[in-house]
Amino acid sequence: MRSNTIQAIDPWLAAALQAKIDGKTKPPGSLGRLEALALQLGQIQNTLTPRLTRPHILVCAGDHGAAKAGVSAYPQDVTWQMVENFLAGGAAINVLARQAGMALTVVDAGVNHDFGVRADLIDAKVAHGTANYLEGPAMDAAQRDAALAYGEKIARALADSGCNVLGFGEMGIGNTASASLITHCLTGMPLAACIGRGTGLDDAGLERKRMLLAQALPRYAGAHDDAPAVLAQFGGFEIAMLVGAMLAAAERRMLLLIDGFIVTSALLVAAGLSPAILDYCVFAHRSDEAGHAIQLDYLGAKPLLQLGMRLGEGTGAALAYPLVAAAAAFLDEMASFESAGVSNKA
Amino acid sequence: MRSNTIQAIDPWLAAALQAKIDGKTKPPGSLGRLEALALQLGQIQNTLTPRLTRPHILVCAGDHGAAKAGVSAYPQDVTWQMVENFLAGGAAINVLARQAGMALTVVDAGVNHDFGVRADLIDAKVAHGTANYLEGPAMDAAQRDAALAYGEKIARALADSGCNVLGFGEMGIGNTASASLITHCLTGMPLAACIGRGTGLDDAGLERKRMLLAQALPRYAGAHDDAPAVLAQFGGFEIAMLVGAMLAAAERRMLLLIDGFIVTSALLVAAGLSPAILDYCVFAHRSDEAGHAIQLDYLGAKPLLQLGMRLGEGTGAALAYPLVAAAAAFLDEMASFESAGVSNKA
Repeated sequence: MRSNTIQAIDPWLAAALQAKIDGKTKPPGSLGRLEALALQLGQIQNTLTPRLTRPHILVCAGDHGAAKAGVSAYPQDVTWQMVENFLAGGAAINVLARQAGMALTVVDAGVNHDFGVRADLIDAKVAHGTANYLEGPAMDAAQRDAALAYGEKIARALADSGCNVLGFGEMGIGNTASASLITHCLTGMPLAACIGRGTGLDDAGLERKRMLLAQALPRYAGAHDDAPAVLAQFGGFEIAMLVGAMLAAAERRMLLLIDGFIVTSALLVAAGLSPAILDYCVFAHRSDEAGHAIQLDYLGAKPLLQLGMRLGEGTGAALAYPLVAAAAAFLDEMASFESAGVSNKA
Repeated sequence: MRSNTIQAIDPWLAAALQAKIDGKTKPPGSLGRLEALALQLGQIQNTLTPRLTRPHILVCAGDHGAAKAGVSAYPQDVTWQMVENFLAGGAAINVLARQAGMALTVVDAGVNHDFGVRADLIDAKVAHGTANYLEGPAMDAAQRDAALAYGEKIARALADSGCNVLGFGEMGIGNTASASLITHCLTGMPLAACIGRGTGLDDAGLERKRMLLAQALPRYAGAHDDAPAVLAQFGGFEIAMLVGAMLAAAERRMLLLIDGFIVTSALLVAAGLSPAILDYCVFAHRSDEAGHAIQLDYLGAKPLLQLGMRLGEGTGAALAYPLVAAAAAFLDEMASFESAGVSNKA
C-alpha cells in the first residue's frame, strides 16, 4: 500500500481569510455556506487569493461480477453502453459538466467490454470486471493496488495539467451493491440500512439485493475497519481507482468534489487510509440512495445540495461546482466596505 | 389597479414532456428536482424544447421612512451607497450574476438620494423614500400604482429584448421590516414570527424592531387580505415595483426566479392579485431570515437551495440559476435510450 503524505489543513491563514470575508460589502455571515467554502478553499490553497483552474470531472467505469446475480435493475451491458454514451457526449454528466464549464475525463477501470483504442477514453482496465464477491474476493491485492496506482497517476496528470478542482463520478451496473457492503463494513451501520434501490429496484428486487448481500458478507473474514481489505473483498475497480485518485488529488492539494453514494464509499476507504483527506472535500449533494445519508452522518458532512437526485456519474458534483466557483468569485471580486465607500454597521 | 391577464399553466403538454424526460439515458426520476424544473419550464414556454434566453437579475432599490426609527442595523445611507456599489460592479449580486451568466438591471425605485443621470441605472424614482408607516401609510395609491406601472414597464422591456428568465432582487435599508408587516397581513401568521434580524440586529435591536412594528400595525385599518392596500400601507417602492415586474413577467410567460424574504413578500402581494403567477415561479433558496420559512410554507414552495444565506440583492436567485439552466440543458441535450443504443430497465 501507498504511504500517506496528505497534510491536514493548517489553520494559520483562517483569521486573515475570515477578515477578508467579513470586509466584503455584505452583513457578516450573510453569504452563509459560500463563506465557509471560501474559507476552506483559501486554506486548501494556502492563500488569501485562491483560484479555481481547469475544473474536471473524473468518471471511472467498471463492471461487477455480482451484477450477474441480479443486484441491479439494468443488465450489465449498460456499463459499456453508457461509456459509449459518455464518449458521444449524450449522458447526463456530459451535459451537466459542459453546463458547469468542467472538462470530463472518462476512464475504463475495468469494464467487461473491449472498447479498442479510443482517443477520449483512458484505458486503465484492470480486468474485464471484478470477480463475484458472492463466491470470493472481488479482486486480489495486486489488482486493487493496480487500480489505486492507476487512479493516483490519473489525478497527478490532471494536477500537472493545471487542474486544482476535481469532481468524482462513476459508472458500473451493480456498484451500489458494492458501495453498500463497503459502507456497512466501514461505518458499522446495519447492512440492510446501507442498501437502497440503486437504479430503481422494485420491492422484490430490493429484497433480493438484501438477501444476496447478506450472503456475501460472511465470505469476508477480515477486520471490518481494514479499509484496503474491505475494498478488495467488495469493491469495484472503478471504486478502487477513485480511491487512488482521491488520495493523490488531496496530496496535490486539489479541492475534491464528492458526488453521491458510490463516490462517498470510495471516500470512506480513502479516509480510512488517510483521514486528513476530509479537509480537502466538498460534499456536493445528498443523494436519495438510502445509504448516502449514513455515509454523510458518519463523516459529519453537510452537502451543498439536496435535489432528490440518485443518478451518479458525478452529476451532483457538476451541479455543485457553480457554488464553489461562486465562493471563489465573491472572495476575489467583491468590493470591501472600505474600497466601495459603504458605511459599515452602526 | 391593473387587470389580471396571467394565464394558469395548461397541463396539455405535461405527458409529452414527461415522456421525453423519461426517455433520457438515466433511471426514471434520478435527476430529481431537475426533472420537475424541466417539466415546469416546458409548460411555461408551451414547448417540448424550451430555451432560456438572456437571463436577467432585476434589482430594485428604495428607501423606507421607517428606517430612521431604527429598524435596521445599518444607516439609511447604505441604500444609495450600495446602489453605487452595484453600478461599480463590486457587490455580491454583481459577482454572482456574472458568475451565472446573467445580466443585471438596477433600478432606482425610490432611493433617498440624487444619483444624477446614469447610463446604467434605470430612474424610476417614485419619491425620495416612502413615508414612515409608524405615522401613516408608506405611500398613497397613486404612488403605489406608479411603482407597479414602472415595474411592469421594465419587465415588458426585458421581455421585448428577448429575456425569458428573470430573477428578482432588492436593496433598501429597513425593507425586512416592511416585508415582515406585509407577510403578517397576507399570511395571517403572528407578527413576531414574521420579524427577523435583517442585516444582523442583535437581541436588543430585534426587540426594538418588534416593538416598533407592533406599533405600526394598528395604524392600518384595512382588510389584512387586501394585498394592494397592505402594499400601500407598509410597502417600499422597491417592493411595489417588484410586484409590477413580477405580474408583467408572468403575463409574458417568463420564468420568475424568486429570491429571499423581501422578494417573496412582493410575490405574496402579486399572488394576492393574481394567484396564477405561482405557476411561473421557481423558488431559489430558503433564506435564514426568520419570516422566509413562513412565506414559503404559506405558498407551499420548496426552494432549490438552502445555504444559510440572508443577503438579498437577488443573490439566491443568481446562485439557483445554474440549476435551472442545467434542467433546460439536460432536456435539450441528453441522448435517449433509443438514440444512444443503451438498454433500458429489464
